[in-house]
Amino acid sequence: MTTEAPLNRRIVLAQRPIGSPTAADFRLEEVPLPELADGQVLLRTLYLSIDPYMRARMSDAPSYAQPVAIDAVMVGATVCRVEASRSSSLAVGDVVLSMNGWQDYAAVSTKGLMKIDASLAPPSYSLGVLGMTGFTAYVGLLDIGQAKEGDTVLVSAATGAVGGTVGQIAKLKGCRAVGIAGGDDKCEYAVNTLGYDACINHYDEDFAEQLAAACPNGVDVYFENVGGNPLMAAIPLLNVGARVALCGIIAWLNGPAPGPIDTAPQIMRALLNKRASVQGFVITDHYATRHADFRRDMSQWVKEGKIHYREDVIEGLERAPFALMGLLRGDNFGKVVVRVEKTEAT
Amino acid sequence: MTTEAPLNRRIVLAQRPIGSPTAADFRLEEVPLPELADGQVLLRTLYLSIDPYMRARMSDAPSYAQPVAIDAVMVGATVCRVEASRSSSLAVGDVVLSMNGWQDYAAVSTKGLMKIDASLAPPSYSLGVLGMTGFTAYVGLLDIGQAKEGDTVLVSAATGAVGGTVGQIAKLKGCRAVGIAGGDDKCEYAVNTLGYDACINHYDEDFAEQLAAACPNGVDVYFENVGGNPLMAAIPLLNVGARVALCGIIAWLNGPAPGPIDTAPQIMRALLNKRASVQGFVITDHYATRHADFRRDMSQWVKEGKIHYREDVIEGLERAPFALMGLLRGDNFGKVVVRVEKTEAT
Repeated sequence: MTTEAPLNRRIVLAQRPIGSPTAADFRLEEVPLPELADGQVLLRTLYLSIDPYMRARMSDAPSYAQPVAIDAVMVGATVCRVEASRSSSLAVGDVVLSMNGWQDYAAVSTKGLMKIDASLAPPSYSLGVLGMTGFTAYVGLLDIGQAKEGDTVLVSAATGAVGGTVGQIAKLKGCRAVGIAGGDDKCEYAVNTLGYDACINHYDEDFAEQLAAACPNGVDVYFENVGGNPLMAAIPLLNVGARVALCGIIAWLNGPAPGPIDTAPQIMRALLNKRASVQGFVITDHYATRHADFRRDMSQWVKEGKIHYREDVIEGLERAPFALMGLLRGDNFGKVVVRVEKTEAT
Repeated sequence: MTTEAPLNRRIVLAQRPIGSPTAADFRLEEVPLPELADGQVLLRTLYLSIDPYMRARMSDAPSYAQPVAIDAVMVGATVCRVEASRSSSLAVGDVVLSMNGWQDYAAVSTKGLMKIDASLAPPSYSLGVLGMTGFTAYVGLLDIGQAKEGDTVLVSAATGAVGGTVGQIAKLKGCRAVGIAGGDDKCEYAVNTLGYDACINHYDEDFAEQLAAACPNGVDVYFENVGGNPLMAAIPLLNVGARVALCGIIAWLNGPAPGPIDTAPQIMRALLNKRASVQGFVITDHYATRHADFRRDMSQWVKEGKIHYREDVIEGLERAPFALMGLLRGDNFGKVVVRVEKTEAT
C-alpha cells in the first residue's frame, strides 16, 4: 500500500461502436482526484449499474437522450459513499444514489443525490429493484400495460433486471405470467423462484409453438424488452385490445437487424386486427407522478419477501465494458452491477 | 324491354386471390329473385360501397372478421330501395342502408336496416362521409388519435374516403393538417379543396424530405391508412408522445411486402425514443358509444358546407371487381361507390 493520493480511474468512450461494442470502443484513464468546490461532496463509487440504454448513448443516432461525447466518461447510475463533504446536507460516510458514470470518484453538488437507507436493503438494490429497473417494471406493467387481474402477461427477458420484477408484480396482481428467456437455466429460475406460470426458451427450435401452448388464453399485456424473435412470436398471440408496453429492444440495439424479411406488415396487421396498441415509454417521464407510489409499494414488497431479486455482480471498474458487452449478448443472469470498490462494508 | 321477371345478378368469390386480386377471383351469376318471407323486404341495390377491408375478407388469413366463403356473395354495404314489403316498418320506395353485398336484390329482415333521409344529402353519402368512412375518420382522429388544437395531423391516403374527411375534421379542430397522396392532382385537390395545409406526393423521389419540410414542428397524430413508404417517412417525424391511429394498411393488404429490409426495428426504436404509440382500431367497435355524436356533428358539418366529399362512381355491378382492384392500386380519387341501378331518381 502506498501513501500517494489515489487517482481517479475512469472509462471514457474512445469511439462510437459499429454494431456490437468491443473493448476498443472504451479507454481506461487515470486522472487526479477532482477538487471539491463549496457545496460539493466527493463521492467514491461503490457500485455501478450496467443497463441496456448505455448502448444507445454510445451512438449519435437520434434518441430520447443526448449521446455520450467521444472522450467523455461513460454514463451510468452509481451507488457512492461520501468521502469528503463541503455541504451541510451530507456527511462523510453517507451512502447516496448518483449518476457519476464509469469512474471511481466524482465531485458533485448534492442536488439530485438521493440518500440511501441501508437498513432497508443492500445499497446496490437502489440501482435495481428499488431503483430505475424496479420502477420501470412497475410503471410499464401497471400504467402502460394496464395489467389487471386475470390478464395473461407475457414478458421477454423474463429474468432480467426489469423483466424479473415485471413477472413478480404480475403475479402479485393476480395475472397469469408467462416469460421468455434465453436459456433453460433462466426459464427454470423464472418458474421456480420468480413464480412465473411458464417460461419458454427462445433458443428452442419450436419456441413459437411452445409459447402459444403456454398462453392458451392469448396475451393481454406483452412487456417487451427485446424485439426480434420474442416479438414475432408474441404478435400472433395478442388478444383483442391487447397492450404492448414497449420498454426496450435489446436485440436491435446494435444496429440494423439482418432479417431478410420485412416484419412490419405482420406487426401492423396484427395491431389492426386485434385493435391492439404498442406504447413506447421511457421511465424518466414518470418520476414526478408515480415514483412515490412505487417506493411505497416496492419497499413493502421487498420487506415482506414478496419480490425476489438477483444481481449479477461483476468485480472491478475495469471490467465494466465486458459487463455491458455481456448484457447486450444476454450473458447476464439478473441485474448487472459492477462492484467498483470491494470492502467489507459493501 | 322484356316482361320476364328480373333475375338477381350477384358477384361471388370464385377463389382466394394470391397477391393482388384479378378478375378470375370473382364470378358473376344470375339467379332467380329471392322469395319474400313474412317480416322481410325485397331490396333493390342502388349503390354498393367498395372499401379496402374487402381485400382482407377475400383471404382466409386471421382477421377481425370472418372471410367470405368460396362461392358466397362478396360482402359490402349497400344503399337500397324497398321494392316489396312484408313488414309494417318499411314501405315500397323507402331507401335504406343495408349490408347486402355485391348483388342486385336481396330479401332481408328489417332488423339492422337504417332508413336514409334523402333530404339531408344524396343517399350514397350514407356509404361514405355520413356512414362508415366518415365515422372512421371521426373516431380515428378524435378518440384514437386524440387530436387537439395546435397539433400537426399527418394523414396518408389524404384524399381517400376516410383520409379526405380526417384532414377536414383536423382543420375544423384547429390542427395543422398535412396529407400524403399518390399523385399531384390528388395533392392539389387536398390543399385547394379539402383545406390541407400541405400535401406531398409519395411517388416523388424526394418524398421523405418534402414531408419533413411540410412538418416543421413534427407530427403529433399520424392517421395511417397505407403502411409502406408513407409509414416509413412518417416514423422519423413523430413527436414525443405522438399517436399513430392505425386504420388501414392498404399497401400491405395483398400479402407479404417485398421489402428486403426489416423495418420493424426502425419503427419500434422510434416508438420507444418518442414514447409514441400505435393503436389499431376497427370502426365496428365504436358504434355503441360514439355513433350518435358522429351523426350529430357530421350532419351539421355537411349541412353547413364545411365538409367536402368526393365520390368516384363506377357504373354497373359487373364492374365492381375492377372498382376494388383499382382501389387497391390507388387508382381511385375519392370514395369508391358502384352505381348498381341507374335511374333518374338516384
